[in-house]
Amino acid sequence: MRLVIDGKAREIRALWWEKDALMMIDQRIIPREIKTVRLSSFEQVRDSIKDMTVRGAPAIGAAAAYGMIFAKRQKMDMTHAATVMKQARPTAFDLFFAVDWMVAADGEGKDLVQAANDYADMIVEKCRLIGEYGEPLIRPGARIMTHCNAGALATVDHGTALAPMRAAWKKGKPFFVYVSETRPRLQGMKLTAFELLHEGIPHAIIPDGASGHFLRLGVDLVIVGTDRIAANGDFANKIGTYEKAVLAKELGVPFYVAAPVSTFDPSLASGEDIPIEVRGVEEITHIDGIRIAPEGCGALNPSFDMTPARYVTGFITEEGILKPSEIAKIKGRRK
Amino acid sequence: MRLVIDGKAREIRALWWEKDALMMIDQRIIPREIKTVRLSSFEQVRDSIKDMTVRGAPAIGAAAAYGMIFAKRQKMDMTHAATVMKQARPTAFDLFFAVDWMVAADGEGKDLVQAANDYADMIVEKCRLIGEYGEPLIRPGARIMTHCNAGALATVDHGTALAPMRAAWKKGKPFFVYVSETRPRLQGMKLTAFELLHEGIPHAIIPDGASGHFLRLGVDLVIVGTDRIAANGDFANKIGTYEKAVLAKELGVPFYVAAPVSTFDPSLASGEDIPIEVRGVEEITHIDGIRIAPEGCGALNPSFDMTPARYVTGFITEEGILKPSEIAKIKGRRK
Repeated sequence: MRLVIDGKAREIRALWWEKDALMMIDQRIIPREIKTVRLSSFEQVRDSIKDMTVRGAPAIGAAAAYGMIFAKRQKMDMTHAATVMKQARPTAFDLFFAVDWMVAADGEGKDLVQAANDYADMIVEKCRLIGEYGEPLIRPGARIMTHCNAGALATVDHGTALAPMRAAWKKGKPFFVYVSETRPRLQGMKLTAFELLHEGIPHAIIPDGASGHFLRLGVDLVIVGTDRIAANGDFANKIGTYEKAVLAKELGVPFYVAAPVSTFDPSLASGEDIPIEVRGVEEITHIDGIRIAPEGCGALNPSFDMTPARYVTGFITEEGILKPSEIAKIKGRRK
Repeated sequence: MRLVIDGKAREIRALWWEKDALMMIDQRIIPREIKTVRLSSFEQVRDSIKDMTVRGAPAIGAAAAYGMIFAKRQKMDMTHAATVMKQARPTAFDLFFAVDWMVAADGEGKDLVQAANDYADMIVEKCRLIGEYGEPLIRPGARIMTHCNAGALATVDHGTALAPMRAAWKKGKPFFVYVSETRPRLQGMKLTAFELLHEGIPHAIIPDGASGHFLRLGVDLVIVGTDRIAANGDFANKIGTYEKAVLAKELGVPFYVAAPVSTFDPSLASGEDIPIEVRGVEEITHIDGIRIAPEGCGALNPSFDMTPARYVTGFITEEGILKPSEIAKIKGRRK
């Protein structure tokens, strides 16, 4: 991803291994500040996932993979460490996938730094391929809508939903992105608009509730990321995704879900089985520590929603674009 | 409306005439503070509508009616004053209706304080009737969803969307209200949840993007207010309303629009003709004066959206509940 820091453009990943530590961009303080944190223990990595210093399903997976290096170095029981790490957040399937990958690598006696680096590189390459497969969907002049952040920050690099946009931009195609702000944590506003700004891609932040209005006025395609896809193609993503899918269908707007195949969870028959994380209500009632809601009011804060497969035009994966009915064809799910 | 101020419950209106001045609750600072402001000139009243000290279509209408008293006292040309007042905000039809009412009263030589009081009392009575007609829609245990604030604050008293809830609560019916926070200005969170809290009605604030999630999980009816209804039943309301209407239809949830007949604008053939106010982007990029969006990002802030009549189950009015196809039956439109 391209970030302009102190006036200079840099190519940077959301997280990387450096001198026996996991470095990551602190996603809680963007856009106020671009700061990296250095993590050097299993517990620090687990906490960075819990407290959303790192977020986005593929990036969570990569961070967890690096975290398992520390589990080994701290001589933890690897099965126990895997269980603890998997409990850091409940919805993203990549977390489980990555931890299992590292446990398997350890079982095979592999070097774990190499294994985690391989995992991160693999995710980055998958995202690059998602960009290549998705890019032709964007015609010059397209008006695209996305939600939350499924960008480089969420996926180590390139992004899932943002990868086709980055690829199209590189090819010189003009297009425009509606970025729904994504309350309560505003990852659309704070992370996606931030990424697009640094790439130079034209965009506008809109309130989540304005998505339908702009879809009705004219959007050519919606592309979102996902945290988990069930065997039948139902998928979970940031709260607010389901609404866009229904509206897109109603208005005849193609609706794409971009994800590496590591996000497909073949063990779940349908989306009803995907656990939906419920987070603290202070994410809604407070902004930057300041109370905005009336004292004493209740609030509900489901972090994700589930969208039935029938609303999905296609899944953009590193194996190509698949219809929900074609999920069974996926090859690399267990690689 | 019931407000608990300094531990004591009071019955209060959103605005009223007192000692040659228009008193109104400052809706910009609720829930932080319950404060009334005193307005004693035409310009002050117009500005209070512009800057949203008073908001909500029926309350804007009542404020404008009182404002026309000052126009007369300031010896303004009444036709000119009417034009200026009508420009305070573009979407709410009640504003035009109320100003025309006062110009007519002036033409007939009526006492304008009496005329404005009559107008406000009429709005309050209409809202009470909306409550009576809408109340039977709420079965005991109902889960209701609303958006923005169509409560007493928006309508002088009772509310439009909230009137049936107040009536049902008075009758002792238990029910629960999902209040979507309504970005960017958060009138759902700051005003509707505030009103429900003071009435003691169980509710939860939800992010706008969670509306679809909860509608899918189970909501018995949606009730919203409106700023203007075209002759064909298309209507404008706070941005985010259209999404709920489409989702409700998709999920088979009844969707009601509550409004006095003064909100019907027979001069517009369809909703496409309703002017949609676009407000400053700092409502999105800043909260309480603090920048939350990345510096340099674009934003779009349409204040209202338009919902086609086919998504409306019924209009709850002071003349009863009407289907969109029954709008022609309305009698009191020009009363």
